Amino acid sequence: MGLLITSKHLDMLKQMAQMENNGKKLMSLLKKRGYIQPAFELYGGIAGLYDYGPLGGRLKSNVNKMWLNHWIALGNIVEIDSPTITPKEVLMASGHIGAFNDFASECKSCNSIFRSDHLLEEIHPNPDSLSQEDLFSEFENNLIKCPTCKSSKWSIPQPLNLMFSTTIGASKNGRTAYMRPETAQGMFLQFPTISRFFRGKLPFGAVQLGKGYRNEISPRQGIIRLREFNMAELEYFIDPKKSTSHNLEIWNDTLLKLIPDGSESKQKELETTIFDAVKNGIVKHETVGWFMIKTYELMIDLGLNPEFLRFRQHEKNEMAHYATDCWDLEIFGSYGWIECVGIAHRGSYDLEAHDKFINTNDLKIWRDFETEKVIEKTVCSPVQSVIGPKFKNYSKAISEKLLKIKNIPESFPFELEVGEETFLIQKEMVEIKDIKTVDRGEWFIPHVVEPAFGIDRIIWHILEHSYNEINKKDDENYTILSLNKKIAPLNFAVYPLYEKDGMKQKADSISQLLREVDGISVIYDGSKSIGRRYARGDEIGIPFAVTVDLQTIEDETITIRYRDSQEQERITVSELLDFATKIV
Amino acid sequence: MGLLITSKHLDMLKQMAQMENNGKKLMSLLKKRGYIQPAFELYGGIAGLYDYGPLGGRLKSNVNKMWLNHWIALGNIVEIDSPTITPKEVLMASGHIGAFNDFASECKSCNSIFRSDHLLEEIHPNPDSLSQEDLFSEFENNLIKCPTCKSSKWSIPQPLNLMFSTTIGASKNGRTAYMRPETAQGMFLQFPTISRFFRGKLPFGAVQLGKGYRNEISPRQGIIRLREFNMAELEYFIDPKKSTSHNLEIWNDTLLKLIPDGSESKQKELETTIFDAVKNGIVKHETVGWFMIKTYELMIDLGLNPEFLRFRQHEKNEMAHYATDCWDLEIFGSYGWIECVGIAHRGSYDLEAHDKFINTNDLKIWRDFETEKVIEKTVCSPVQSVIGPKFKNYSKAISEKLLKIKNIPESFPFELEVGEETFLIQKEMVEIKDIKTVDRGEWFIPHVVEPAFGIDRIIWHILEHSYNEINKKDDENYTILSLNKKIAPLNFAVYPLYEKDGMKQKADSISQLLREVDGISVIYDGSKSIGRRYARGDEIGIPFAVTVDLQTIEDETITIRYRDSQEQERITVSELLDFATKIV
Repeated sequence: MGLLITSKHLDMLKQMAQMENNGKKLMSLLKKRGYIQPAFELYGGIAGLYDYGPLGGRLKSNVNKMWLNHWIALGNIVEIDSPTITPKEVLMASGHIGAFNDFASECKSCNSIFRSDHLLEEIHPNPDSLSQEDLFSEFENNLIKCPTCKSSKWSIPQPLNLMFSTTIGASKNGRTAYMRPETAQGMFLQFPTISRFFRGKLPFGAVQLGKGYRNEISPRQGIIRLREFNMAELEYFIDPKKSTSHNLEIWNDTLLKLIPDGSESKQKELETTIFDAVKNGIVKHETVGWFMIKTYELMIDLGLNPEFLRFRQHEKNEMAHYATDCWDLEIFGSYGWIECVGIAHRGSYDLEAHDKFINTNDLKIWRDFETEKVIEKTVCSPVQSVIGPKFKNYSKAISEKLLKIKNIPESFPFELEVGEETFLIQKEMVEIKDIKTVDRGEWFIPHVVEPAFGIDRIIWHILEHSYNEINKKDDENYTILSLNKKIAPLNFAVYPLYEKDGMKQKADSISQLLREVDGISVIYDGSKSIGRRYARGDEIGIPFAVTVDLQTIEDETITIRYRDSQEQERITVSELLDFATKIV
Repeated sequence: MGLLITSKHLDMLKQMAQMENNGKKLMSLLKKRGYIQPAFELYGGIAGLYDYGPLGGRLKSNVNKMWLNHWIALGNIVEIDSPTITPKEVLMASGHIGAFNDFASECKSCNSIFRSDHLLEEIHPNPDSLSQEDLFSEFENNLIKCPTCKSSKWSIPQPLNLMFSTTIGASKNGRTAYMRPETAQGMFLQFPTISRFFRGKLPFGAVQLGKGYRNEISPRQGIIRLREFNMAELEYFIDPKKSTSHNLEIWNDTLLKLIPDGSESKQKELETTIFDAVKNGIVKHETVGWFMIKTYELMIDLGLNPEFLRFRQHEKNEMAHYATDCWDLEIFGSYGWIECVGIAHRGSYDLEAHDKFINTNDLKIWRDFETEKVIEKTVCSPVQSVIGPKFKNYSKAISEKLLKIKNIPESFPFELEVGEETFLIQKEMVEIKDIKTVDRGEWFIPHVVEPAFGIDRIIWHILEHSYNEINKKDDENYTILSLNKKIAPLNFAVYPLYEKDGMKQKADSISQLLREVDGISVIYDGSKSIGRRYARGDEIGIPFAVTVDLQTIEDETITIRYRDSQEQERITVSELLDFATKIV
């Protein structure tokens, strides 16, 4: 799993072993309680397609909301939404057709097809960085066995287009299209609108949340590798000639775990501040560093364990050819270290790719020169008083053509071609003179830094890092899902001590009052013992339990129980409502 | 447009004419300012695919959020999320393959293809309710001309499957799938999980927001008829044998415009309360009525004009065969009256369709009988002391078979077949006796009421109803987009009076303070005169403008200007921040 182990990691190792063990128990809990589950199970299920259930759906909404607010708060970021169906031409230009391919190996004995890199995972540290030939020789040299029939005869790995294709319009005259492999193209194609919105003043950015699609050959690992996944991408456009000024020192009390690209040598993990990492040139661009620390900040807000976060720099051969620096945020869980966010400096690649297809400056930004450039040149200036009467209707076209002559003729008369006609230009018709023009600025294609988030992977790790088993005297496997209260799908559970003597009605009416607080979700639960109900609430991560008893009816007080401390206190209903408004 | 005009509608008619005129101006404003625009315009555009831009993206998010909170607050509604890619088997069962078809007519002269109903819109009030034969005879009788070549020779209308198809997995052994035509199937397929979450206690419901797909033959009308659209559906499951108890009288001060199904006769609009409409049997089911008024409530919250809302009951031949009642919420705008929400009582159709494919009670709910049913029957009870020693290993199977015998044999011995063996049963081996069994309840498939919302259509009408032109002395076409402050994409604009003397820095720092309020979005604008900036803010619907001047630097007060009243007042920065926390 690539992590270097030192003595100080011993405690963490224990936690890791625990986590791998918990992963399976967690998945079963999540299915049973309605967080996540394989989709279409009534029809036998389909690999790589998952449902978010009654709890998971709301969790995902809350994670999306927190993600969005985090970036919108920067002030120069807008939210857009574009279609998932994308015409072929767009993906040809973006390089997704042809390049966005995994290699597949076919077993010559049984004709099973597998992702080539998956079969090499135990042999090679980074098999998805290998070329077609290198993949094949690894298969040959290591006598890789077919998981189906155990033979070792393999075809040469073939690139597979992993996009879902479809047709727009009635099939006779339909157009080929694909389900988008990423949300990023939406931001690039909307660049003209986004730029107009910001009046062309860089830096600015746009975000989009939504589905991405990848027709995986053999999806696995739960919601880590899906055929239809939830993405959240940000494209931040900058002027490559203007220096940025992010005050990275304000995060100087935060140490990040970084694994810089060691290329051929072994990768070494180091702990450093983002300020130092940029200053020392480990992170090559200040804006990349700024997004790394802002991403880290968000991950902590979402409730992830900082011990289990690290940034890994892409190796040179792993990085797209146009990218100048790329860092993955990896999160540790029961599947090992998993890439959950990619932060890439992509240069001007994406906008340039689309710019080739248009004739306007729509994908460019105007930059004033610091000092205007004065250009001197010699021109052949038409003398209108002569040319006008002589050439009449042709005089305008002739004048324009004369001004464009680059090599000033040395002798007169000379022939000038305009359209299909030829005219003889005499000495008195023109004046040879030196003029000055002023160049005030230029159009350029901005660069882009792209943080791209895999929301499903982040959600999985939030759930893993929130999963705790504690020992209680009467329950050895007491489970608490300690989700951050800002993203927990249910904010309150309301329990009548018993469903009698008016306690049910009182609990119902308190539930209703809580629900009137905008965005608060509340569950009422009246069945089984109060201890059982607390346990059920802790297991699904409800942060606050409200118990209604006979005293509530007398004096309008309830007991509030805090999931994480397992402590209780008695407060009034109006204090409770006030508390509720401060949660979301 | 189907609306009966009476004298009291005269004012409204003026507004309508104004609105049709405004529709075009609005669309141009929305494109220019970044609300909505045709997608893929850099590549020539694709009919039926639209982008939400820097303002529209946030507007859609806010509308979705308000929609979601409205239903979650009911307390027995959960949010789920399921894949958009749907395997063929699911859509075969749901009836979408075969039934979810529009008819297309092909011109025999030029081979152009058109939606049959679209070409009949000026001939027939409701052409999408016509059968294949009726469509064809309307074409014949009315000599409908081909819009392309003006010929009137038409093929018989053919049903077209309007789903986008794709393939899951490597194409050799791939599975046929479709992009979902609605989000509803996700809720039906997740019924087992949702039901478990609510411990099988009806009524309960689930919602899902997301993309739906429909491969329209000839999309048009802006974002009214899209190939990829934003949906929001709610499935509310009820026990058909339990009476509902919605207190509809609390809405007795709200008059709804209803157009009940008049079948062959002319449809008459009436104004009534929802309580009376249910009591008088116009709305056939109380839960349908309850969702109608809750939907109306939400539409008003979203800022739609109540004058331009009406409910139209489906005609019998327009309604799906299994539906028992169906009402569309229609909203009036520049395209006429447009169906934006459908509220349908669908009986048990959907769950039953999937139930045919499974052998469990997963799609059923257990209902206790009010009084237990005692069933008396005569059985052939095995005498174990005889059967055991005699038949040894077979005795268990024989005993079970004996208990199941329906026609008690009248004479002994008799032959009993168990599996492939035959055994001879003697009189002493059994005891003929009367027993009682108790039937405590039964499994049943719940009914469902489904409100289904077209989010794009609702957003379009929100924008239309918010669009106002007012006369100002210096600007004849002064435009105000009076979006409800809860959904406006930008909450605040912050303007320094001039970008000098510290006012820019002060405005920047106040913007940043506002942005720290969770969910608030703020734009800073420093260019052109303050009047021009107010106008730009009004035009894109920013509800609150904050102006920073020299006095701000002295005494920490700003001017807040309210878009709708166009009034201003001076308040402190801390009052401003307090105000901001109360908006979202």
